[in-house]
Amino acid sequence: MYIGIDLGGTNIAAGLVDAKGRMLFKHSVPTDSKRGALAVIESMIELVKTIRKSAPVDAEITGVGIGIPGIADPSTGVVLACVNLGWFDVPLKDMMSQSIDLPIYIGNDATVAAVAEFEVAQKGQYKDAVMITLGTGVGGGVMVGGHMLSGHHGIGSEIGHMKVGEGLYTCGCGGNGCLETFCSSTAIIHFAKHLMTTTNQRTLLTELSDGQMEAIDGAMIFKAARAGDALAQMVVDRMVKYLSIGIINVVSLLDPQAVFIGGGLSGAGDYFLDKVKETVETLKYFKGSPCASIEIAQFKNDAGIIGAALFAKLEQTQ
Amino acid sequence: MYIGIDLGGTNIAAGLVDAKGRMLFKHSVPTDSKRGALAVIESMIELVKTIRKSAPVDAEITGVGIGIPGIADPSTGVVLACVNLGWFDVPLKDMMSQSIDLPIYIGNDATVAAVAEFEVAQKGQYKDAVMITLGTGVGGGVMVGGHMLSGHHGIGSEIGHMKVGEGLYTCGCGGNGCLETFCSSTAIIHFAKHLMTTTNQRTLLTELSDGQMEAIDGAMIFKAARAGDALAQMVVDRMVKYLSIGIINVVSLLDPQAVFIGGGLSGAGDYFLDKVKETVETLKYFKGSPCASIEIAQFKNDAGIIGAALFAKLEQTQ
Repeated sequence: MYIGIDLGGTNIAAGLVDAKGRMLFKHSVPTDSKRGALAVIESMIELVKTIRKSAPVDAEITGVGIGIPGIADPSTGVVLACVNLGWFDVPLKDMMSQSIDLPIYIGNDATVAAVAEFEVAQKGQYKDAVMITLGTGVGGGVMVGGHMLSGHHGIGSEIGHMKVGEGLYTCGCGGNGCLETFCSSTAIIHFAKHLMTTTNQRTLLTELSDGQMEAIDGAMIFKAARAGDALAQMVVDRMVKYLSIGIINVVSLLDPQAVFIGGGLSGAGDYFLDKVKETVETLKYFKGSPCASIEIAQFKNDAGIIGAALFAKLEQTQ
Repeated sequence: MYIGIDLGGTNIAAGLVDAKGRMLFKHSVPTDSKRGALAVIESMIELVKTIRKSAPVDAEITGVGIGIPGIADPSTGVVLACVNLGWFDVPLKDMMSQSIDLPIYIGNDATVAAVAEFEVAQKGQYKDAVMITLGTGVGGGVMVGGHMLSGHHGIGSEIGHMKVGEGLYTCGCGGNGCLETFCSSTAIIHFAKHLMTTTNQRTLLTELSDGQMEAIDGAMIFKAARAGDALAQMVVDRMVKYLSIGIINVVSLLDPQAVFIGGGLSGAGDYFLDKVKETVETLKYFKGSPCASIEIAQFKNDAGIIGAALFAKLEQTQ
């Protein structure tokens, strides 16, 4: 069994998870990152202790996996940056290890969410797969040969920061042209507003948002596009174009068996998926070239905890 | 010991190579691809037999590696496409195995060239490294965890076909925006001629090529740029920009320890490397982010044979 910890901006959630990804129970506490890294890590240690106390007496716990909203050096376990928590160069693994006598594995939150998808929803059938998570930002999880790829310095699988074009605005990372600035909900809302303010085109989005431009969200854009709204369709088409470039770049480099699209925007389902598949087809290496299957991710609940626990399992069995 | 075969458009070269990448001897025969795949494969089999006969009596040969100018399915050993040889769906491994009782491993030519660089020139010190080869086209070799990545369908590590912008011409693969159309010698010659014919700008290239626009090559462009020629500098700057985007995309996805730049154009050396490093620095994930070192590849002779042999070794020891 494994303990998975989902370190989020709002809550720290932790649970006891078996090797098949079934969660026995979970606990959570508010993150309250203003307390500082030391206090937050104390809370994580307390959660691990509580879970060990509540675990069945015969439960053999062999590792702790932690999903963090940032990047960590895989060789040292030092968190290089969790911008939203205000963490820089925090020796998370060492600090946890002072109180916890279990191996500790730290992964990016998008990476551990991908583990939940690959190992549970997809039943561990893939050894080479990629997940692209389309939310407020764009994250990625990359499995190569059954092993999650974090990279030499811990900055790998950052699919959202691949450069795919000339962007309309500067990415949170400080760069321009990042996939995230074309395909996140932030990006499509930004582009929809841009079109609404720079053109006089009528759009269903005005009605859907009760005339409150600030209320426009990703789901509204897809709803309007589906209903035939020209402006919303232009927004979706631009997103699909750049997501497809991102996917084909992943395919050119890694050639995985499957690419999963997850995150809130993947809720647009087949309407969206069909457009992506069609566009990727036009970008393939050569006509008739084999290519990864492209699918909507299936895993729903507690991906952060379960993925973190199974991330520990994968790291331990490699 | 291993037998390495370099299947080229002009010659088939094969040699006996030890585990440290030292070549004992080599033989070669013309490819003459017009003979058809069957005859070419017969020649490859003959070369293997000749090498086994000439090998020292105590040489234990444990595998044959073949570098092909195309792609092969790693699970079946079927060559999916070698466009220049006119090969499509050729069951190379099975056909070789009928006459050769040694394990056979097939890799892309850019992949095996990268093996020579990583294992011999860099002394096997990297387990996560990437090589980008800038020649007539752009090829790539990707090592992840000490294993060369060919991908699930054999189309991985095709760095030259990552989409990095809107290109001036259609790539050989049929697509637009491939890295190859910005960074190969073909690409920079194309762009130099484009500038010469669409602007009235005077350029040293006219002099260097004796007024024969057809004679312009990659080395001339770098020579002119180094000498301060504005047009040539514009060509080099564009190439550097897109190569840097390609490198940063590789870094965002794989985060290797090192990226090596090889191939004919890498002969431009530090003048070129410094520009690439500077540009990559501006594109990094975040300020102060760790990043792969970027270096000029060192391996020079017989990379095809030696790389193919050591590719067999790597495949066998994984």
